[in-house]
Amino acid sequence: MTPTETRPDILWLDDLQVGQRFAGGSVEVSTQDVKRFAREFDPQPFHLDEEAALGSVFGGLAASGWHTAGLTMRLLAMGGAPFAGGLIGAGAELSWPKPTRPGDRLSVLSEVVSITPSRSKPDRGIVVLRTETSNQHGEVVLVLTSRLMVRRRAG
Amino acid sequence: MTPTETRPDILWLDDLQVGQRFAGGSVEVSTQDVKRFAREFDPQPFHLDEEAALGSVFGGLAASGWHTAGLTMRLLAMGGAPFAGGLIGAGAELSWPKPTRPGDRLSVLSEVVSITPSRSKPDRGIVVLRTETSNQHGEVVLVLTSRLMVRRRAG
Repeated sequence: MTPTETRPDILWLDDLQVGQRFAGGSVEVSTQDVKRFAREFDPQPFHLDEEAALGSVFGGLAASGWHTAGLTMRLLAMGGAPFAGGLIGAGAELSWPKPTRPGDRLSVLSEVVSITPSRSKPDRGIVVLRTETSNQHGEVVLVLTSRLMVRRRAG
Repeated sequence: MTPTETRPDILWLDDLQVGQRFAGGSVEVSTQDVKRFAREFDPQPFHLDEEAALGSVFGGLAASGWHTAGLTMRLLAMGGAPFAGGLIGAGAELSWPKPTRPGDRLSVLSEVVSITPSRSKPDRGIVVLRTETSNQHGEVVLVLTSRLMVRRRAG
């Protein structure tokens, strides 16, 4: 195997098919993680304080939706979507059907929605990937639809 | 002023108008911040290593788009969008026209796009808020369109 040989688990645009699915690993979120993320990026009472969260719309401490998004990105980058050139997002849509709770273990399942080779840049294209992030009860906490720039194999 | 009196800078659904704008504070991003976020949430070479980033599509170290989103959320939560009940997102759309670079100072400007009182829950509604996050050169690094649950004044 030469140093430039492609690792077999890396997928190029040309290897992808609509409907193709990818599973990733999982990650657990602690109370400390939830509060640490919130202090830095989403300092609102329902992400920081159990007592305040009880009286909120969440009815208890909830992770920031951006924390759930970050953990989802981690799972995708750690093997959940092994695309050539890495995961480079042009845009994304998110919805949070349920909050992530302290102690949750999250996992991701992704599906290729569309594949569009670039007309101007023959070395790449755009892949739309739909990812569902679920907790240990199988409840979906994030639906992420990403537009990703994926490389083509050299011709 | 009684403890339950509303702070004058808190806006309820009833106080909002389409086209209304809000500015927030600003936040600076260091190289250390970029790498620390990436190690935890987006461990890809172009977010972690200057050398590797040079040869990437970014042409140099770039913050994760989710880091830019997190910092945007911070600026909104710290006063950039002072809505009653806090900032509770039902969904969001993002695009990243340019990457955030180490040393950038980001600021946010938001505009109310639409206001839809809930038909089933008279105490709330959905506000669509469009936020542009810009760097110190006035370049937009994130466009975030959020669907937020906002409380109405008690009737």
